[in-house]
Amino acid sequence: MQLLKDRILEEGRVLPGNIIKIDGFLNHKVDIGLMRAIAKEFATLFDLDGLTAVLTIEASGIPLAAICAEEYGVPMVFAKKSKSDNIEGGLYQSDIFSYTYNKKVTLLVSKQWLGADDKVLIVDDFLANGEALRGIVEIADQARAEILGIGIAVEKGFQPGGQNIRDAGYDLKSLAIIDKADENGIVFRDGYS
Amino acid sequence: MQLLKDRILEEGRVLPGNIIKIDGFLNHKVDIGLMRAIAKEFATLFDLDGLTAVLTIEASGIPLAAICAEEYGVPMVFAKKSKSDNIEGGLYQSDIFSYTYNKKVTLLVSKQWLGADDKVLIVDDFLANGEALRGIVEIADQARAEILGIGIAVEKGFQPGGQNIRDAGYDLKSLAIIDKADENGIVFRDGYS
Repeated sequence: MQLLKDRILEEGRVLPGNIIKIDGFLNHKVDIGLMRAIAKEFATLFDLDGLTAVLTIEASGIPLAAICAEEYGVPMVFAKKSKSDNIEGGLYQSDIFSYTYNKKVTLLVSKQWLGADDKVLIVDDFLANGEALRGIVEIADQARAEILGIGIAVEKGFQPGGQNIRDAGYDLKSLAIIDKADENGIVFRDGYS
Repeated sequence: MQLLKDRILEEGRVLPGNIIKIDGFLNHKVDIGLMRAIAKEFATLFDLDGLTAVLTIEASGIPLAAICAEEYGVPMVFAKKSKSDNIEGGLYQSDIFSYTYNKKVTLLVSKQWLGADDKVLIVDDFLANGEALRGIVEIADQARAEILGIGIAVEKGFQPGGQNIRDAGYDLKSLAIIDKADENGIVFRDGYS
């Protein structure tokens, strides 16, 4: 998606350790107009016939998922991290390793809000090691929900998360796949996978 | 806001300990059409002239804040909880007590994305003890941003958060204030404050 790639080139910064900072429009300060454009782009890439919900993981996936849900006219469900005392009853759970927080966290979705009748699009703002994505896919599978597709805004193509999910047979498409990011700049992959 | 109050009466459940479960449309599974209606309602209640950003706290405030930001044509900025290694440099910080997680958490906003030139609307989905709200107000004040108003979807009027913030002089309006919630049902306050 050229609009997104241009924005990354204009405003992104590469920090030591291959960290790509795009928190001025994607995941701290968020350009919601860009989220709307991404939602429209996903609609051209996936067959959303019968979609019942957009699924994501807290926190930074939520702005994109909210706009996608409105765009497609379905509710949004987000997986919560760790155990909150306010989630009662039956829960789908998946343990993941969070590289952001450098510890294990548990993803939780109430069984009330996801089930075998659901057809979901999973979306997230960012994919690198793919632990959070692996967790939400596991939860959708536990729920026997049908995963119509997985839409990611920005993928670090030089980390294994995306390939692992694709190898497992899921239709994962990312609008900007970064194959290289260092002091010489950012190199994007052509295509969505 | 009658639409919201009706929805709470239809789908909300009161659990022991005055816990009000409305996670089927507000903060786990989220009805984004309702968030849009709330955003439009806030626009009638606050003077948003000169607004530069909508501010909220992760995670459950984000869907509403994203829709508000798009509705008013400004970016959304959300405060992160705890220390993520991926937030570099200057940060506004506020320590709060999380009743959800029963521990201290630190709210963080990068100084890059909030400053003295900003005029913000703070929004959140839910207000009870008001610790998260106190924290984000403190951060906006640290940044010397102007707070044009504070818009809350659902307030537990029998807990002190709302009153504390109003007593401190902030223009806090909540679209559904619950004054009583027990086995006999839910009683709403008239008005927005």
